[in-house]
Amino acid sequence: MSFNENLKSLIKSKKSHLCIGLDVDETKLPQSVLSSDEPILAFNQQIIKYTEDIAVVFKLNLAFYEAMGEKGYRILQETLSMIPKDVLTVADAKRGDISNSSSMYAKAIFEDLGFDAVTVNPYMGFDSVEPFLKDQEKGVFILVLTSNEGSSDFQQIESADGIPMFLEVAKKISKWNGNDNIGMVLGATHPEELESAVKAAPKLSVLIPGVGKQGGEVKRVKAAFKDSEQGPYIVNSSRGIIYASSGEDFASEAREAAKELRDELN
Amino acid sequence: MSFNENLKSLIKSKKSHLCIGLDVDETKLPQSVLSSDEPILAFNQQIIKYTEDIAVVFKLNLAFYEAMGEKGYRILQETLSMIPKDVLTVADAKRGDISNSSSMYAKAIFEDLGFDAVTVNPYMGFDSVEPFLKDQEKGVFILVLTSNEGSSDFQQIESADGIPMFLEVAKKISKWNGNDNIGMVLGATHPEELESAVKAAPKLSVLIPGVGKQGGEVKRVKAAFKDSEQGPYIVNSSRGIIYASSGEDFASEAREAAKELRDELN
Repeated sequence: MSFNENLKSLIKSKKSHLCIGLDVDETKLPQSVLSSDEPILAFNQQIIKYTEDIAVVFKLNLAFYEAMGEKGYRILQETLSMIPKDVLTVADAKRGDISNSSSMYAKAIFEDLGFDAVTVNPYMGFDSVEPFLKDQEKGVFILVLTSNEGSSDFQQIESADGIPMFLEVAKKISKWNGNDNIGMVLGATHPEELESAVKAAPKLSVLIPGVGKQGGEVKRVKAAFKDSEQGPYIVNSSRGIIYASSGEDFASEAREAAKELRDELN
Repeated sequence: MSFNENLKSLIKSKKSHLCIGLDVDETKLPQSVLSSDEPILAFNQQIIKYTEDIAVVFKLNLAFYEAMGEKGYRILQETLSMIPKDVLTVADAKRGDISNSSSMYAKAIFEDLGFDAVTVNPYMGFDSVEPFLKDQEKGVFILVLTSNEGSSDFQQIESADGIPMFLEVAKKISKWNGNDNIGMVLGATHPEELESAVKAAPKLSVLIPGVGKQGGEVKRVKAAFKDSEQGPYIVNSSRGIIYASSGEDFASEAREAAKELRDELN
């Protein structure tokens, strides 16, 4: 089954569009896990246990694990091993390089670590993305319009065709979707533009960061996905869920925050 | 001293524009290192020893190290520890993410691993690049026009101003260079465009991949840097040098190939 089909069916069976970002910062851990042998793993384990029935996807931003140095790789591996099969895993890696280097990244992320999907930067074009696309079961979320302020610097530059760069990207990548495993990253902070990108590439799945702390509104996001023929979409929240409480109740409070966002999305 | 000043003075003192890519592939090692405890380290050590007086920069593509799984991190650390101080190190990582994630990548690459410079993807804009720029001694080579075929997909799309996207990038990033530590990545496979980007952002340093196996010509590259006021430039070769021979003489042959390219660039 293709990644996009798999994602669609999981969203249906779990009745959830929720993606939880396991972006764990050593400096923000609750007191109650600090006595564990490996506080970050203890934290991730609790968050996963309390939210795995609510989330369809766990997204792990590799920057947070790489910043831990050598032990980061082991923590990443052990965290992945705790995630049950009915929750897909996305390596939020934003990779992209010339073809032989991208093949190496694909090997590291899909084969060695065993992620189900990855985020990829489109700037270097097709041959930089292609090595990630080969296995139809592995998903590739390509940055189209990101949630941050700097998205206006290049993504929104108007092309000679009179459309913004991010729409050029959306249109072109939708032609690369022969394996039905491409998705777009579209920030919730740009609701109108999100809608236009979904219209330009309706078959692609969509990963939406930027709700909560970054300011994106859930109801504006939902409005872009009225057509049931569209590709599946997931909405990510990281800090708003995993740091819902800094007390001993952090895991149960994360569960409540996750439920709330899931229900708001339904 | 700023990174660009430092690079300029090293180029002058070593009389070399050469950057060697230590992109080591486990499947391509010469027979003669296979009996070592750690063949990749044995290989890197020999290459470094035989070329450190010729190269101004060693560029390590992180994809190749990440593809080795857990041991890749240790090999990367140990390789870096073998490189003498008068050769700068670039993490060819092509990172870029929202600000707090880019800060984590900057920590991993500059603080934990101790690289002197990094390659960064501009697609997400200023706030995704800024965390890498804070320390003026650390260099940030931003992808402008890459050497691969896919560079035509988005980098060469014409903007409404009538100039290609990569020139929009070159012009904008030259305004971010307050710490004199920004460089451009410009592929040797596009000599005319390389020249126009250097004209658009003359103060930035330039990292040039794509000579040798990828087809870029050295004399066309040199022609773009006639003006002595321009930022310093380095030309990278990876496979053409480190795999110059697959025999026992691999290190001395790498030295010969490095000398030849250095001399051709002078």
